[in-house]
Amino acid sequence: MDKMASNIPVIMVIFGGSGDLAHRKLYPSLFNLYRQGLIHDNFAVIGTARRPWTNEYLREQVNDAIHETFTEVNENDVKNFVEHFYYLSHDVTNVEHYVSLKELAQELDDRYSAQGNRLFYMAMAPRFFGTIATHINDQKLNGTGFNRIVVEKPFGRDLASAKELNEQITTSFAEEDIFRIDHYLGKEMIQNIMPLRFTNPLFKSVWDKEHIKNIQVTLAERLGVEARGGYYETSGALRDMVQNHIFQIITLLAMPEPRDISATSVHQAKQELLDSLIIPDEEMLKQHFVRGQYAGSDTTFAYRQEPNVASDSKTETYAAGEVKFTAGPLAGVPIYFRTGKEFKEKKSRIDIVFKHSSTPYGSVHSNNLTIEIDPRNRIYLRINGKNIFESGIREEKLTYALTDEEMAKIPDGYERLLHDVFVNDSTNFTHWSELERYWQFIDKVENYWEKENQDISEIIQYPPYRMGPKEANQIFESPTEHWIYG
Amino acid sequence: MDKMASNIPVIMVIFGGSGDLAHRKLYPSLFNLYRQGLIHDNFAVIGTARRPWTNEYLREQVNDAIHETFTEVNENDVKNFVEHFYYLSHDVTNVEHYVSLKELAQELDDRYSAQGNRLFYMAMAPRFFGTIATHINDQKLNGTGFNRIVVEKPFGRDLASAKELNEQITTSFAEEDIFRIDHYLGKEMIQNIMPLRFTNPLFKSVWDKEHIKNIQVTLAERLGVEARGGYYETSGALRDMVQNHIFQIITLLAMPEPRDISATSVHQAKQELLDSLIIPDEEMLKQHFVRGQYAGSDTTFAYRQEPNVASDSKTETYAAGEVKFTAGPLAGVPIYFRTGKEFKEKKSRIDIVFKHSSTPYGSVHSNNLTIEIDPRNRIYLRINGKNIFESGIREEKLTYALTDEEMAKIPDGYERLLHDVFVNDSTNFTHWSELERYWQFIDKVENYWEKENQDISEIIQYPPYRMGPKEANQIFESPTEHWIYG
Repeated sequence: MDKMASNIPVIMVIFGGSGDLAHRKLYPSLFNLYRQGLIHDNFAVIGTARRPWTNEYLREQVNDAIHETFTEVNENDVKNFVEHFYYLSHDVTNVEHYVSLKELAQELDDRYSAQGNRLFYMAMAPRFFGTIATHINDQKLNGTGFNRIVVEKPFGRDLASAKELNEQITTSFAEEDIFRIDHYLGKEMIQNIMPLRFTNPLFKSVWDKEHIKNIQVTLAERLGVEARGGYYETSGALRDMVQNHIFQIITLLAMPEPRDISATSVHQAKQELLDSLIIPDEEMLKQHFVRGQYAGSDTTFAYRQEPNVASDSKTETYAAGEVKFTAGPLAGVPIYFRTGKEFKEKKSRIDIVFKHSSTPYGSVHSNNLTIEIDPRNRIYLRINGKNIFESGIREEKLTYALTDEEMAKIPDGYERLLHDVFVNDSTNFTHWSELERYWQFIDKVENYWEKENQDISEIIQYPPYRMGPKEANQIFESPTEHWIYG
Repeated sequence: MDKMASNIPVIMVIFGGSGDLAHRKLYPSLFNLYRQGLIHDNFAVIGTARRPWTNEYLREQVNDAIHETFTEVNENDVKNFVEHFYYLSHDVTNVEHYVSLKELAQELDDRYSAQGNRLFYMAMAPRFFGTIATHINDQKLNGTGFNRIVVEKPFGRDLASAKELNEQITTSFAEEDIFRIDHYLGKEMIQNIMPLRFTNPLFKSVWDKEHIKNIQVTLAERLGVEARGGYYETSGALRDMVQNHIFQIITLLAMPEPRDISATSVHQAKQELLDSLIIPDEEMLKQHFVRGQYAGSDTTFAYRQEPNVASDSKTETYAAGEVKFTAGPLAGVPIYFRTGKEFKEKKSRIDIVFKHSSTPYGSVHSNNLTIEIDPRNRIYLRINGKNIFESGIREEKLTYALTDEEMAKIPDGYERLLHDVFVNDSTNFTHWSELERYWQFIDKVENYWEKENQDISEIIQYPPYRMGPKEANQIFESPTEHWIYG
């Protein structure tokens, strides 16, 4: 959390430097960190990819990326910034290219006095992560200063492949130098979960199994798979959204209070929780999990009709289920999740539903605390109050929302997380031991669904641009539970 | 709470029928209740006062009052409504006038089939309440149906005079037929206190001495005494605001949960609390009470310069103090109040301040729940959340506010309370036993101040249009406490 750090010396190597992620997220974020002085004189960025770009062409691209993202920039800043960028055409399987990369990095280290610090960023197709990591090790690309690696999701496609990838990376990098990035952890309202839970006695004193009935995490997307059908066929909603984003959110919601907010204490609290994660059995999978695919309409494709999707695909574009722990403040409390494509709207939110009992006013609604992550940053508390014009009780909603001005200024998740990598703060990154637990859970669900696939010709088809499959309304443990959002 | 009641038969007698209260509040409220059908065909209103008005003149006045209050009315409704009004010139000390009143009431009862029901409303100078009550009894003005009396504040000026008045009234009326009105209990957010406390597990589970550090009730007025100096000299802030409004609010905040929301259960819960009211001793009065008078400025009068105010007056225009109970959910929790004239703004609000302890984020602000009664109807919850742009914690405010549309439609407190009198719901009226406790408390403070007056030439003078005397910042039990609003 060293906010005073500035002018950090480092040579950063971006694998996938010509790609979409680098263009849309990394270059603008780096520019903002440059403007703030976090990196300034003693850094250089090497973009590598297969395409035969030149330094000049990369710099044009970085220049464009900055202007596409920010409306007002100092052109002199941009000019100075892009001069730190270098391009190396690179085939990730070619040994010699790693040698060239090593030499360029060393040369730039000398030129920029980067003190032997190296940051490798895996911003490309995940199938190459292992190969690159192995080569970094074999060709000794590590510098003499710090050596960190940022790995994009997906980190494996099941526990076995994640383990293999992790072994490849750990040949060159210590666990504390591996930053498994999940941009959800850079989002404002996700980063607000711990402060909300641990600095407010009002919430803290009811954040337990005595007061919370259930928690609901919804990550709804409006879009379909669009051009990403090929990738999506190898993933599905569970691997694409639940294994990472949803599990990270759930962990923040259910973990015990850390001793302090150091990365070590936070990860320790998370691990304590995850040790008690219930891996679902068949009964639980049958009762409390639902998957589906979006159907077509007069004007839209069904998932199975999308480009690069098999016409008999059973890949889920929607998944809902239940997560439970045996320890922590919410031991035994059902945490329901759902995520999917072609919902009625883009919406990421968390609903915390409190238990209620009878009142002098008879039966009333539950109190709910809602944390909206997207599209707005909002918190609201649904409480009961008196009806204004007649007797009885009505719902009153206490709202906190970031202003439009704040929304416009809010740093992008990538900017925040890159900042954290530079200052070596791993709080908002996933440790291997956490990831391992997430995959154990996901594998169990995937295996169950794969087995089920042998007996069915298609999975549930749900109407596009509504709330997903109606079957998801039946996943609850009790008939008094229902989705708060919908 | 009988909302379905309609066309209640009754002859209503308003003492003070030519007065300001009747004009501004009672006539418009009655008209609204007429429009809703609560009173309709079988009612008549007799306005009485000293002035020699005629029926026609009263009806014109009622007509004017309605048009001054409502922008849109059905003129036919108004015409029909005012025809129910009758005027009788009346000297409250003249026996014969009560005989005439009795005869007119009987005559109208026959004409309107009012079933012998009588409602007497004391809307005049309090010094006549006792005389009128005695005459109602002596000249047997009571009807053969229900007989209710509404008594405006102030109900006495100390415990002794209140007792005397109560005895005079109870010669003719049973306790359950006496409606001691306090229009504060008709206000939206005051009526919302019980629902908020008792239908929300989130608040209910922290509404105790373990979680609440203190409660602060502020009734601040922007205006000075204006033309009411003569009356105010006999009263002061303590009698004018604390004895009634502030104590009513405190009672609602600190009472135990009633079994149900019937008037009986609610009054029982209030009484249970008030039995444990701590009557302040000298030490408490010295430490935790402050009074003051507004000073003048270049452009405004000091209180002592106001018309009909003694130039050496020691009447307080500001009072602050502490109320505590030995029983109930808030046993031992300090409840601080302050009220006064010539504050920086008109504002009535309640701040509930929650205890806080150390957090993984270090020291943070307390959580506060604020209920704003005037000028807006709002609830807000101050919590802690993460800073957006740098590390650390900032304040986030969750707000619920009535919309402008709701604000415009909200029934006046008088309308609500008159409704309750018609349907015989005494929930929001003050029982004698409650009043008795309030006066015991007030008398103790008044006596202490009167004694003190012998040794001082003037009480604290505070600058106008700010936050009252700075001495009020020292009334707290602990140095970690301070006024939340200000």
